[in-house]
Amino acid sequence: MIEPVDQQAAIAARTRIDMLTKPLGSLGRIEELAVQLAAIAGKIPATAYERKAVIVGAADHGVAVEGVSAYPQEVTGQMVLGFLGGFAAVNAFSRMARADVYVADFGILEPIVHDTLIDARIRAGTRNFAREAALTDDEVNDALHAGAEVLDGILARHTYDVLAVGDMGIANTTSAAATIAALCNADPQEITGRGTGIDDAGRERKIAMITAALERVERSDWRSVAREVGGLEILGLAGVMLAAAARKIPIVLDGVIVAAAALLADAIDPNIRGYFIASHLSVEPAHRVALTHIGLRPYLDLDLRLGEATGAVLALPLIEAASRMICEMHTFAEAGVSSAS
Amino acid sequence: MIEPVDQQAAIAARTRIDMLTKPLGSLGRIEELAVQLAAIAGKIPATAYERKAVIVGAADHGVAVEGVSAYPQEVTGQMVLGFLGGFAAVNAFSRMARADVYVADFGILEPIVHDTLIDARIRAGTRNFAREAALTDDEVNDALHAGAEVLDGILARHTYDVLAVGDMGIANTTSAAATIAALCNADPQEITGRGTGIDDAGRERKIAMITAALERVERSDWRSVAREVGGLEILGLAGVMLAAAARKIPIVLDGVIVAAAALLADAIDPNIRGYFIASHLSVEPAHRVALTHIGLRPYLDLDLRLGEATGAVLALPLIEAASRMICEMHTFAEAGVSSAS
Repeated sequence: MIEPVDQQAAIAARTRIDMLTKPLGSLGRIEELAVQLAAIAGKIPATAYERKAVIVGAADHGVAVEGVSAYPQEVTGQMVLGFLGGFAAVNAFSRMARADVYVADFGILEPIVHDTLIDARIRAGTRNFAREAALTDDEVNDALHAGAEVLDGILARHTYDVLAVGDMGIANTTSAAATIAALCNADPQEITGRGTGIDDAGRERKIAMITAALERVERSDWRSVAREVGGLEILGLAGVMLAAAARKIPIVLDGVIVAAAALLADAIDPNIRGYFIASHLSVEPAHRVALTHIGLRPYLDLDLRLGEATGAVLALPLIEAASRMICEMHTFAEAGVSSAS
Repeated sequence: MIEPVDQQAAIAARTRIDMLTKPLGSLGRIEELAVQLAAIAGKIPATAYERKAVIVGAADHGVAVEGVSAYPQEVTGQMVLGFLGGFAAVNAFSRMARADVYVADFGILEPIVHDTLIDARIRAGTRNFAREAALTDDEVNDALHAGAEVLDGILARHTYDVLAVGDMGIANTTSAAATIAALCNADPQEITGRGTGIDDAGRERKIAMITAALERVERSDWRSVAREVGGLEILGLAGVMLAAAARKIPIVLDGVIVAAAALLADAIDPNIRGYFIASHLSVEPAHRVALTHIGLRPYLDLDLRLGEATGAVLALPLIEAASRMICEMHTFAEAGVSSAS
């Protein structure tokens, strides 16, 4: 389903970049990005990557009742209303990046009726993974499919050059940390952070719950991980990513929740790795572990820890810049500029 | 002439940011940026910072005849023609950022006749500082004034919310490294890099020349530094910066050449510091020394070493995002979202 990225196109892009009017390699990681865009597209980009979509997946988490978040659970739905109204950070940043924002409900506790909210609901939040499996195998499959359908529905009406993905879900750093600990075989003590701002006691509760739940998990089996400690938006976003890579669309990852989704997508089809672009490094410790596991180095270091795709949206200008570099700059020959000695 | 940035406005901005619908501090350095924009403006920004100007200062350097650059000196003028034609990296990136590009000639070797090139010529390049003072005291003053006039001329016709500055000048990393070594009291051996890509022998020549020239310099006197080892575009850009800060416009710095200009501007009027925003960290070692000296932490780490304002232009979207965050996001009260416990 997902083709590996095209190494021949990458080589062709590198060759062209080295002829552009600038010292060799002097645009550093922007050059790397342009090479990756070519590898994903299977050809050197011919136009600027101006058509940008942002998909925010939202859902609730049963584990929230254990007091792992500083915020009450109804905030998931309240924030989603903010996204739909255009008043949240993701909206402000997306106006800067000229990106269209889509919001998908994969399982918010209380259904929201709104014209532009994409209905991809599987169930009203996950079960509390401190006590039982968060999801059934069927629900895992349904959430992955729902994510693919969200992307297909959007692309049926619009064309996009690049996709940023983000999350909203109170308590979802707990699910993400558990997912990342399992899939990266990491110690919950080392990778569990403060999420939106819990105190030391709250963090200790998170670690204890994650450690206990992971005893039920077969770490080498992504289905077991997703079922026991997964999240509906995490699986939905993994489905979005798998569908995007199948259509050769670059996927800009956001923070720790999206990284958990990326790890699941990578476990399902490792060919997806070449389609991922890491935007920023979150202050959540699990984020670095997850990015290292899939071989990604982020472009921004802004001490972000919001989610909502905010970090991914801030990286979209870099991707547009890389595409413009390779398709708009002249070569030394075209420009009549003397080469290096 | 330059007012210190307004700490009361900074406090007001911090208070508003802490009421917005996001966990406290969760937008990290974007929040810092928004606070700085308020401090510079003297009030919380009321509209998005969409009106962006880029000024690239160009000039030649007599020291180029010593073989310190991988490129022949005529490349300065050739590249400037590329900027004016819209085919260079700064143009591609500025189309992404929706920024207007202005190019000023502070002393290119051969004059260029072109409609949109801003004539701010002081002389045809500096003298070779390996043998004599690069400039006279009058030329230093004239270049600073010319920079201020470049900005005033632009602002007489357009209004801008933010300014990015950059450079073009074959051999100018040699002048910049000497300027930074002098003003930061640093060892040339530690701060001299490879510029556009010279080899080990070339780098050793650079270091020897800088060390010898610095023996003529009174390090505590910026006029002595500028006269003995300065550059016309470096002084011109310092003049641009001083004029921009006097008009309360945020100044986005580019790489090592612009950092040398910022150090000179800071030596002339230390009130300018609060107006500076560091965009990226260049691979040139002198860049880190200069930014640390004026207390700046860059936002991007992209291994850039091109100049032309390319790094500064890549940071303009972050500044627009920060302005939009503070003036477009709703507070918890406005949005009806429950606060943290």
